[in-house]
Amino acid sequence: MKPGVLKGTRDFLPNQVLKRKYLFNTIEAAFQLYGYLPIETPAMEKLETLAGNYGEDGDRLLFKVLNNGDYLAKADAKDLANKNSKKITHSISKRAMRYDLTVPFTRYVVMHQNDIQFPFKRYQIQPVWRADRPQKGRYQEFYQCDVDVVGSKSLIYEAELVKMYDYVFRKLNLKVLIRINNRKILYGIAEYCGCTNLFDEFTVILDKIDKIGINGVTKELVNIGINENSVDKILECITIKPENCTTGDCIDCGYENSNKVIEQFGEKLGNEMCKVFCLKGKFTEENCSKGLLGIEELELVFKYLYLSYNIENDFEFSLSLARGLNYYTGCIFEVKALNAEMGSIGGGGRYDNLTEKFGGKNLSGIGISFGAERIFDVMEELELFNQIDISLNSKIIFLSMNQECQESAFLTCNYLRIKGVACEIYPEPLKMKKQMKYANERGFQYVGIVGEEERINSKIMLKDMISGEQKMVTGDELIEILK
Amino acid sequence: MKPGVLKGTRDFLPNQVLKRKYLFNTIEAAFQLYGYLPIETPAMEKLETLAGNYGEDGDRLLFKVLNNGDYLAKADAKDLANKNSKKITHSISKRAMRYDLTVPFTRYVVMHQNDIQFPFKRYQIQPVWRADRPQKGRYQEFYQCDVDVVGSKSLIYEAELVKMYDYVFRKLNLKVLIRINNRKILYGIAEYCGCTNLFDEFTVILDKIDKIGINGVTKELVNIGINENSVDKILECITIKPENCTTGDCIDCGYENSNKVIEQFGEKLGNEMCKVFCLKGKFTEENCSKGLLGIEELELVFKYLYLSYNIENDFEFSLSLARGLNYYTGCIFEVKALNAEMGSIGGGGRYDNLTEKFGGKNLSGIGISFGAERIFDVMEELELFNQIDISLNSKIIFLSMNQECQESAFLTCNYLRIKGVACEIYPEPLKMKKQMKYANERGFQYVGIVGEEERINSKIMLKDMISGEQKMVTGDELIEILK
Repeated sequence: MKPGVLKGTRDFLPNQVLKRKYLFNTIEAAFQLYGYLPIETPAMEKLETLAGNYGEDGDRLLFKVLNNGDYLAKADAKDLANKNSKKITHSISKRAMRYDLTVPFTRYVVMHQNDIQFPFKRYQIQPVWRADRPQKGRYQEFYQCDVDVVGSKSLIYEAELVKMYDYVFRKLNLKVLIRINNRKILYGIAEYCGCTNLFDEFTVILDKIDKIGINGVTKELVNIGINENSVDKILECITIKPENCTTGDCIDCGYENSNKVIEQFGEKLGNEMCKVFCLKGKFTEENCSKGLLGIEELELVFKYLYLSYNIENDFEFSLSLARGLNYYTGCIFEVKALNAEMGSIGGGGRYDNLTEKFGGKNLSGIGISFGAERIFDVMEELELFNQIDISLNSKIIFLSMNQECQESAFLTCNYLRIKGVACEIYPEPLKMKKQMKYANERGFQYVGIVGEEERINSKIMLKDMISGEQKMVTGDELIEILK
Repeated sequence: MKPGVLKGTRDFLPNQVLKRKYLFNTIEAAFQLYGYLPIETPAMEKLETLAGNYGEDGDRLLFKVLNNGDYLAKADAKDLANKNSKKITHSISKRAMRYDLTVPFTRYVVMHQNDIQFPFKRYQIQPVWRADRPQKGRYQEFYQCDVDVVGSKSLIYEAELVKMYDYVFRKLNLKVLIRINNRKILYGIAEYCGCTNLFDEFTVILDKIDKIGINGVTKELVNIGINENSVDKILECITIKPENCTTGDCIDCGYENSNKVIEQFGEKLGNEMCKVFCLKGKFTEENCSKGLLGIEELELVFKYLYLSYNIENDFEFSLSLARGLNYYTGCIFEVKALNAEMGSIGGGGRYDNLTEKFGGKNLSGIGISFGAERIFDVMEELELFNQIDISLNSKIIFLSMNQECQESAFLTCNYLRIKGVACEIYPEPLKMKKQMKYANERGFQYVGIVGEEERINSKIMLKDMISGEQKMVTGDELIEILK
């Protein structure tokens, strides 16, 4: 039988695992620094828990697990005869593979609400499975890294999560742009322009502005049946360019008090905030109270971000950001890698009703996700791993001239391990050339050779594989060198 | 909808995840110290890769994943009409969940043989899934921790793996007994006693000796059709008690040269080795050459173990140890926790033909497994986690009297995080009592209170939650205290 893996799934070689570990550990360390706690949920959930959460498309992409035993026994004979796959599924499968971490998390929060404290800050780094058509960069099994806080509406978390993005990508040495918007503002625009009935469609089109341009957006808005007058008003909103307040000197739009903090961030952010306030100028309590609320929320989030003087990555208010998932109800985020051709490598936002399916009372939450697989690919592309010592490889392997020498090498090997120094021993006293070849291929930095002379004197001939230098050392000297 | 998980699967609360992480990290650190490298394989494998490896029972316990789309379309109409679950399975499911780590590993080794160096030393810590009936301590999703080396017959690895068991359980502060045997010796006994035709059955019965006693074993041997004469000879072998050589003074059985090293291990091990040699005395080149080979192998393994003077846990030659899996061809191991009611918490052995299914040429391997879930349960039972600081929890949470104070607290919080000190902030300036309640429930060691006085002076009122002591500190003083 020819060995192979399923399409869309991957084996990882040691070097890849080590890089992935470095990535996950960096992300996890940030989660812990910010006080988030780890949870884990099962890979398989009840099908009824997962089904119905991801839209029709998502449901089709769920991997369903066949019931065990004589699973056809209870299946409807007529549906079987008609080969009605859709109808049969629920009678032959009660399990499905985790499709994301969000739904299991909301299930978890409701189920364990008496064992956890709210606000509940959790992170979760686990694989998910999707029956998507495999292609470059898209897998059927991949990791998600989610961090959420549930049980508080405080906007301080919006700022905290943006800061966490900044922190992680700084640690990874990856320059990014963090885009920020608020779904309430988008709803405000829809309200102002009189097209709330087509809100979701409107946001989906808006989200494509970078790809299809302002003309493309106009065309698609008309196509879905938004009238000309509304389209004009939409365009007026989304093309706001506050050119007359480039220095953060935004007295006109009521931002005077924040001038000082804005200064720290320079023109760009001043402009971003002005843009929000220009928009605010269009809205009134009557034509879009929700939009005004969204702007106020964003104002406070930016204030917290200004207070966090240590953000190094770019972040901006981005009116066209919509996020595909319509369960977001407030601030939304998206992260793009600069200097690399790649879609979003992170995203998230605030949601208010996610726990309702499981009977969770009105629990507001907010979370972000790190697109670990894509981040990994970008880091490979930019050769960022080359700058990091990811190796867990032991640095030395012992080679021996004969059986007695090997016993002596084995003793030294034991001694090093007791002292906490990782090391290996070549398993047989074969020809030195063959042992050396293995040491070379494995990439050891040193070899420790034990011949008769070394054995008799309880020493090791230490060879530096890069410089070629050799010297005779004791076990303790060896430990000093390797530590 | 009532939230719940599937039977046999588990959610893990933060505290449980932290304990599990501690356990896995301890095991992983040992693997790395001994120079083993991590690999990962997909959770789902081709059904044909997994099926047929685990016996009929195992095959039934495989979780099979339903094909996506209109999966019934290609299924045989007649088999559907007959509700023939068994026949239909392969036409509606081409994926199965990983049942163990061994089969995926052997698939991996053959598939990547040109990307890895032999001997290939790998470890793998990943979950597996089995449709076993859930019960106390038995789950449908659980972790395995395997470490193997493939591509060498050297017995130095037998010793290395036993030492790794000792190392890990010492680090975990768990006293264990490591039992060692060699399947070749068992085969030798079968050969000597003339019942090689019933070898597998014989070993399964022998393995139960601790439970059913010598009488039970006798009865069952007779039951499976082994004749009286053979049974007598078997009993003679397995009841060897080398009482006349309790001090390792085993000249009669040819062990004189090892006296000195034996001394270090005292009577018990001397006795163990004598037992092997008493057995050797019964065998000849004619009646069981394989048995003699097994004894020689064991002799060398024990010699390496004697050389490793730093083994603290008990280990012994255990003739009745058989291991259920008949792919083992040489040394076998099993670990039992002392001081706890629990079956084996680890096991493994040497195998010679595992890669053959995938076309791998004659690659001998040896591996052991740590039963992480059981080890976890034993450690909980013995309250071993209580002695360890597993907390990743930030030690401090900031509470604030009002909105301005919260901004000040937020700044301090940022400052601490920049300095690498984990901390949290209560998200809203609610009544102090409510904030304190949360801090208490979460178990923070300190709270940092920011009221008007603290805000104006850029300080924090630090309260020790255990002693109740309070003092006013600066951010830098706080970092000193927390670090």
